[in-house]
Amino acid sequence: MGHNINLSNYKIRTDLAIEAINDDINGVIVKTENIDKVKVTKVEICEEASSKIGKKTGNYVTIEFDDITDYENSKKVEKIFSEQLNNLIDKININKEASCLIIGLGNSKSTPDSLGPLVINNILVTNHLFELGEVTDGYRRVSVLTPGVMGQTGLETSEVIKGVVEKFTPDFLIIIDALASQSIERVNKTIQMTDTGIHPGSGVGNSRKEISFETLKVPCIAIGVPTVVDAVTIVSDTINYMHKHYTYSKSNYNNPRNKLMISSPNYLKEKIILNKKDKETLLGIVGTLKENEIKQLLFEVLSPIGFNLMVTPKEVDFLVEKLSLLIGNGINKSLHENVV
Amino acid sequence: MGHNINLSNYKIRTDLAIEAINDDINGVIVKTENIDKVKVTKVEICEEASSKIGKKTGNYVTIEFDDITDYENSKKVEKIFSEQLNNLIDKININKEASCLIIGLGNSKSTPDSLGPLVINNILVTNHLFELGEVTDGYRRVSVLTPGVMGQTGLETSEVIKGVVEKFTPDFLIIIDALASQSIERVNKTIQMTDTGIHPGSGVGNSRKEISFETLKVPCIAIGVPTVVDAVTIVSDTINYMHKHYTYSKSNYNNPRNKLMISSPNYLKEKIILNKKDKETLLGIVGTLKENEIKQLLFEVLSPIGFNLMVTPKEVDFLVEKLSLLIGNGINKSLHENVV
Amino acid sequence: MGHNINLSNYKIRTDLAIEAINDDINGVIVKTENIDKVKVTKVEICEEASSKIGKKTGNYVTIEFDDITDYENSKKVEKIFSEQLNNLIDKININKEASCLIIGLGNSKSTPDSLGPLVINNILVTNHLFELGEVTDGYRRVSVLTPGVMGQTGLETSEVIKGVVEKFTPDFLIIIDALASQSIERVNKTIQMTDTGIHPGSGVGNSRKEISFETLKVPCIAIGVPTVVDAVTIVSDTINYMHKHYTYSKSNYNNPRNKLMISSPNYLKEKIILNKKDKETLLGIVGTLKENEIKQLLFEVLSPIGFNLMVTPKEVDFLVEKLSLLIGNGINKSLHENVV
Amino acid sequence: MGHNINLSNYKIRTDLAIEAINDDINGVIVKTENIDKVKVTKVEICEEASSKIGKKTGNYVTIEFDDITDYENSKKVEKIFSEQLNNLIDKININKEASCLIIGLGNSKSTPDSLGPLVINNILVTNHLFELGEVTDGYRRVSVLTPGVMGQTGLETSEVIKGVVEKFTPDFLIIIDALASQSIERVNKTIQMTDTGIHPGSGVGNSRKEISFETLKVPCIAIGVPTVVDAVTIVSDTINYMHKHYTYSKSNYNNPRNKLMISSPNYLKEKIILNKKDKETLLGIVGTLKENEIKQLLFEVLSPIGFNLMVTPKEVDFLVEKLSLLIGNGINKSLHENVV
Repeated sequence: MGHNINLSNYKIRTDLAIEAINDDINGVIVKTENIDKVKVTKVEICEEASSKIGKKTGNYVTIEFDDITDYENSKKVEKIFSEQLNNLIDKININKEASCLIIGLGNSKSTPDSLGPLVINNILVTNHLFELGEVTDGYRRVSVLTPGVMGQTGLETSEVIKGVVEKFTPDFLIIIDALASQSIERVNKTIQMTDTGIHPGSGVGNSRKEISFETLKVPCIAIGVPTVVDAVTIVSDTINYMHKHYTYSKSNYNNPRNKLMISSPNYLKEKIILNKKDKETLLGIVGTLKENEIKQLLFEVLSPIGFNLMVTPKEVDFLVEKLSLLIGNGINKSLHENVV
Repeated sequence: MGHNINLSNYKIRTDLAIEAINDDINGVIVKTENIDKVKVTKVEICEEASSKIGKKTGNYVTIEFDDITDYENSKKVEKIFSEQLNNLIDKININKEASCLIIGLGNSKSTPDSLGPLVINNILVTNHLFELGEVTDGYRRVSVLTPGVMGQTGLETSEVIKGVVEKFTPDFLIIIDALASQSIERVNKTIQMTDTGIHPGSGVGNSRKEISFETLKVPCIAIGVPTVVDAVTIVSDTINYMHKHYTYSKSNYNNPRNKLMISSPNYLKEKIILNKKDKETLLGIVGTLKENEIKQLLFEVLSPIGFNLMVTPKEVDFLVEKLSLLIGNGINKSLHENVV
Repeated sequence: MGHNINLSNYKIRTDLAIEAINDDINGVIVKTENIDKVKVTKVEICEEASSKIGKKTGNYVTIEFDDITDYENSKKVEKIFSEQLNNLIDKININKEASCLIIGLGNSKSTPDSLGPLVINNILVTNHLFELGEVTDGYRRVSVLTPGVMGQTGLETSEVIKGVVEKFTPDFLIIIDALASQSIERVNKTIQMTDTGIHPGSGVGNSRKEISFETLKVPCIAIGVPTVVDAVTIVSDTINYMHKHYTYSKSNYNNPRNKLMISSPNYLKEKIILNKKDKETLLGIVGTLKENEIKQLLFEVLSPIGFNLMVTPKEVDFLVEKLSLLIGNGINKSLHENVV
Repeated sequence: MGHNINLSNYKIRTDLAIEAINDDINGVIVKTENIDKVKVTKVEICEEASSKIGKKTGNYVTIEFDDITDYENSKKVEKIFSEQLNNLIDKININKEASCLIIGLGNSKSTPDSLGPLVINNILVTNHLFELGEVTDGYRRVSVLTPGVMGQTGLETSEVIKGVVEKFTPDFLIIIDALASQSIERVNKTIQMTDTGIHPGSGVGNSRKEISFETLKVPCIAIGVPTVVDAVTIVSDTINYMHKHYTYSKSNYNNPRNKLMISSPNYLKEKIILNKKDKETLLGIVGTLKENEIKQLLFEVLSPIGFNLMVTPKEVDFLVEKLSLLIGNGINKSLHENVV
């Protein structure tokens, strides 16, 4: 390369399977549904695709939605979430009497990382009532654990979980965690579910921290919401929007409709075909790079000066509270027939 | 009995060894020290006394103090607490390199029961730093756990602890818990330490919930503070004070010194000898009963109508916060040579 | 008196009008209703009675209820509370468009004193939306204030309120506060409403701290819940129960029905007529004193030794949370036609 | 313009005076000092410069620092902050007996906006103790207020403050608030002080919300910390870093020193001279725009699609806690001679 940019390895920090998937890979089955403006994407990754995309074989369900500070919308998403969770539980053959241990990962003292512990606060716990014979039909045994994070406890979290699972032998686990997103659009607006468990630093073979059927010998459903995003992602997403905005503006500059509009139109809703020439005109060398190369470049620019910040929207307190209520209620409905 | 009082069995709800001990029992060694207005009582219970008083063999140290919302006094108590904890650790032959898991029992969402989790917030956790090789001399491995209560988690707390202890095999445990007191005077003004662990419903043989060397195979030091007291105790203590006040008033009624005093004197500081006749005059049949009989009677009066409330002083939030800071700091100093 | 008890002045620390009222005083109108096991007492104090009982002229409504941790019961009490508040608002001729400032008194950092601030968290605030023209019919202007307590702010709370009221000139105020009770039975189980405002140290003429129509020139509805009780009250209530229990036991000692019962009966549900002789037999001199004299004696016994603690039940966190939700929802329904 | 970019008006969302100042404006006096790696910038804006830069006449002090989660560094910054606050108080002729009302603006329930209320928790409040005659020499009268935000209270915050100030007539005010930053580097790493008060939407002439000497008739010192930053700023800062990184890389590509380095060097520490040609090569049209034009372009790109998020670093809970302790302690030291 004549322009002296060293593209070192920028590891994409995403926990969302949907973000790691390209259109046509053998061994990946993708179904997309739009339920009342909520987008549900189901991905099944089979053996042959697994290694290619660095995701474990299994089922991944992603629910994308709009503003859940709106009560009506929040109730709609809760219903869809609960149905999808039910489907996933059925798919892996867990029956109605199976006992469940729900684990809220994360740090309750750090708002963007507190989703797991907050969901736990909204869970209907029944296990101890079964011991007392105080439970009617239509409920199953549910218990919860908030193991904290290693920076607080000094203990490897996966080992805490292993110790508790071995002692109580629940029939399956549900694990809730806050995630990092690889797109501005998805932050606090996506719920992912998977039957493959949790794999911090996945692909690297760091099985020590893995929380999954393989390590615990019980089925593990992981539920995650991306609550943070890094600066690299914000900038690379924006560069992409700049291209679209430029191309859109060029072809609509003399459109009299736009001249009358008070605020700018949402150009993302239009069909825009980018071309190589425009991209290079707008952004020079950077305009010639592929998305992945741009991320690598940005990582190289921001990391050595300490500014590849992980950030969260300033409304994070309200959003995490609403999300934890939605997920808690949804889990209660999925696990207990009598909760409606 | 002619006066028709059925004295059923009122189980004394105390977790404080000092309250279960009478003066002269064989096999009990008691030492009392006053360090700068702080009273330290050391009790060693040997085999022959153990069954008699329903307390396990081992060491019990009780520290009694005044208002710790006063900063100076708080620092003084912290120092004494830390020294006594050091003595106890030495006494059971735990060395300076031994790793420690500190467990905060109780419910973080219920103020009078939140002492354990709050102490944990003030602990210097180092275990994970040892893994990273980031620790200098003068520190030992310390990790923490807040297992919650069964009403929240659905899980038997002692089993959660057992699962974690088996996985991490710490060299010894420190367990912190809020207790019930059997005396108004001690609420939020006493710290007890013991090397015998925790025995909920002790004496009853409910070993399922026991947290001790016997159940976990590692030394267990329990630290407790009484934060609640029941109505039976408040009333029976008050009856005792009424006797003293009556006897004191009778003999001082014509004392001109008292007539000049604006507020009443603290009669507890005087030497008062109660006599049978006075007690019966003041309080009739009740005046003839022994302390234990009075408690049984009160229990019989209050329980069937639902008013044997467990209560806590209204300043509980501030007191529990101060106590947890004091205990947390004290533990840090005892466990790490480099913390001073 | 031969037995040397000095009955100094013990000021009854009650904020509940219902507790200050004896049966037959001229100028007091009392109506009692039982709505589905919830007891509603309405008291109207007229001029001639006001000075006699040390309570201001006006309306007092007291709602007494059972366990509100039970969801069904909580909803029932909420409905009755909201209806009674509506009645009181109507009675003082406040119309549907009148703007309301709701003030949450107390210390948010002290659980038993946090009722006011917690209720505020549950209030539907609309005043600023009116400014933006975003409100439909069926709502009125509602704003809120949590002025804190003088120990936190350094400011006389009534003056903070006066400053804000003068600036915003709301049409009426609702003031919420945690109270002291003069009976074990009422703690966390009573809501009082009055159109006379708040009078700390009432009777003493300390008008500086008064929050009322007289001081603010706008109608003031005060809503209070007793969350604390002092040791004097606990003991004097218990002495009263001891008398009843003794008399009941004596006459039922040979009742074979009781002998078969596993737990003791709730003797308070029986009609028990106490007699002077029994009282003196059971409790000697103390048995001869009137309730007020007993309280004075207990105050004299406990105060000089520092043990007339104000206490709160150990479940206070959960109870105050439930109560604040109930009162917040109830106020929202009373103030806005469109909230149901 | 041939390339069809409409540069509409992007209002720079900065509350930091230092960010609004260019090098050479008449009527601006700037002094910069480096005290032990902490940078202190003092700006005095006189009449003639005021309108040009849209900032009020008066004094602005900005303190820039590194990681304050480090205890030593935190103590160092606290000391410098306290000294600078003292200087500012002296400069506007406020004497040692003058009473102070400290106001914590912002929403205690939203972490990035909770700095004001959190600082208040750390303030030594004395005003009520003066009333009781309990204060020794070396202290002044200090009281505090946390008025909340309009979205919570329904009340215009500046009017609440006006009402309280008129009632208590303090001699001067200190107002604390969380700010928006116009640079990634300054987020949570800068404290600004000014004697000009608070001017939300300053320049727009929205004096209704102003909190200043002009509106309240008492001197107002405002203290702010930027805790949030918008996406426009993150991207435009990154574009700037890309230019520097590109120019640096080009001239160091064959530098053998770099080839041996494991991690990349911090190129911001080097002297880099950007040239027009390089900028255009790297970033095309965008490379030809001035900083302000880039911000306008980015605003135009991100706003219509709803992605000009205001964000905060994910560690915000810990940072805001440390900052509020630092500022609270610093204020206490500045206001009371006896606090050291």
